[in-house]
Amino acid sequence: MTRGELIEQIKKKRSFLCIGLDPDLNKIPEHLLKEEDPIFEFNKAIIDATKDLAVAYKPNIAFYECHGARGWESLKKTLDYIPEDIFTIADAKRGDIGNTSRYYAETFFNYLKADSVTVAPYMGSDSVLPFLEFENKWVVLLALTSNEGAKDFQMIESIDGEKLFQRVLKCSQEWGTPENMMFVVGATRMEHIAEVRHIAKDYFFLVPGVGAQGGSLEEVVRYGWNKDCGLLVNSSRGIIYAGKGANFSNQVREAAKKLQQEMAEILREKKFV
Amino acid sequence: MTRGELIEQIKKKRSFLCIGLDPDLNKIPEHLLKEEDPIFEFNKAIIDATKDLAVAYKPNIAFYECHGARGWESLKKTLDYIPEDIFTIADAKRGDIGNTSRYYAETFFNYLKADSVTVAPYMGSDSVLPFLEFENKWVVLLALTSNEGAKDFQMIESIDGEKLFQRVLKCSQEWGTPENMMFVVGATRMEHIAEVRHIAKDYFFLVPGVGAQGGSLEEVVRYGWNKDCGLLVNSSRGIIYAGKGANFSNQVREAAKKLQQEMAEILREKKFV
Repeated sequence: MTRGELIEQIKKKRSFLCIGLDPDLNKIPEHLLKEEDPIFEFNKAIIDATKDLAVAYKPNIAFYECHGARGWESLKKTLDYIPEDIFTIADAKRGDIGNTSRYYAETFFNYLKADSVTVAPYMGSDSVLPFLEFENKWVVLLALTSNEGAKDFQMIESIDGEKLFQRVLKCSQEWGTPENMMFVVGATRMEHIAEVRHIAKDYFFLVPGVGAQGGSLEEVVRYGWNKDCGLLVNSSRGIIYAGKGANFSNQVREAAKKLQQEMAEILREKKFV
Repeated sequence: MTRGELIEQIKKKRSFLCIGLDPDLNKIPEHLLKEEDPIFEFNKAIIDATKDLAVAYKPNIAFYECHGARGWESLKKTLDYIPEDIFTIADAKRGDIGNTSRYYAETFFNYLKADSVTVAPYMGSDSVLPFLEFENKWVVLLALTSNEGAKDFQMIESIDGEKLFQRVLKCSQEWGTPENMMFVVGATRMEHIAEVRHIAKDYFFLVPGVGAQGGSLEEVVRYGWNKDCGLLVNSSRGIIYAGKGANFSNQVREAAKKLQQEMAEILREKKFV
């Protein structure tokens, strides 16, 4: 998907909602467990209930991989089922030496046909560049994550006064462009979102941590907005586990709708739609 | 596997050789392509030819994942086939927020039954700790990698004069111990191996980059040796693609044997055996 097509979707759906597809067999509605592929059936119900509200879906690969080959089948079916005009993010946090990253890129872009993949920057340029060689495919690079451990290394200040996450933001702009790279910027570090926006003006941010992890949508927009919206705000648990019974997908839709309506209001206020 | 059992294997086999199982359908002997599972048959031949010479096998997950569910089956069969007294390293370079890392840990330790998994440190403590909660299982943490891009972030110097990889080495010793954690230390940065050994005296290092990537075994030992050997030296392409024809496994064995004999000589010189 191109950047223009993504922006068009945001305008059309009045939404910058990304839904995290993290299916956990201990948490999904019990009646699905008797299906042949409970994970796919769960995702299918969520996609059916929210595809007019979400502009992106983000399957977290760990939740599939833990079921081995079967899990990879559920993942493939899920990605095949997502409508083509919705942006897909394989949340895999990969990154390895060049020839290995190339294999990962082929896996996520050619085999699974995801639009993007999350990549960890620790190994530097040649671990990221192979992902940027695919037309209309995206790297979503970890910059400032929403977890507690983010402070351990990402916040380390270098002798030239730059924190590691700032260095990642600057250095990686020599590899990718706003047309093929986004950044992960956690909503739990609000004080830094403005800083990140200052460094990466034109880039989209994938923002996890709104809801379950405590971040506020209003504040994310206050500090992270750019002229093209520039935000994909992810919610996983708050939406996909909103319901338990046979009609769980109604509650899933309600939870997604609530966030989408807040987003529509913001987009109107910003005169973006 | 425990640290004691690993050291015992090193003494018994007079070897600290790790063989990287990176099966590439474009490179494996042609006659295997007609098999139902060429990747597993290739690995099986390599394991059969080298299991008395290697103390560890390291499948690189990217080479399996790119075949989707089928690749995961080949990976599972490969790990099941490796004799129990040989250390296994799932080279996956995972790392995510806590609840996700827990799923990855379950995948590699419980489902695949690997002894260890490589982990990227960028997301800090809670991305690594879940892997350390499994008895007799290991984290192999990226510290100083052997690729060109290693200089981009790993070598950044902080205001307190510490490079990022040094900070990773120190900080992570508050999470793990020499009994459940090793470090990846590339053989292409010889000038730093002594430095790394100084910071992490008792830890095992997984050393990639000997052979194909240019590092020398003798120098790795000169700077990286500790009282328990403390080294697992990996070779992938140099061994697994040593032969092409029907009898490729003979050449594979020769290539592994050559390295193992150099190692046996070193172990004797060091009076370790």
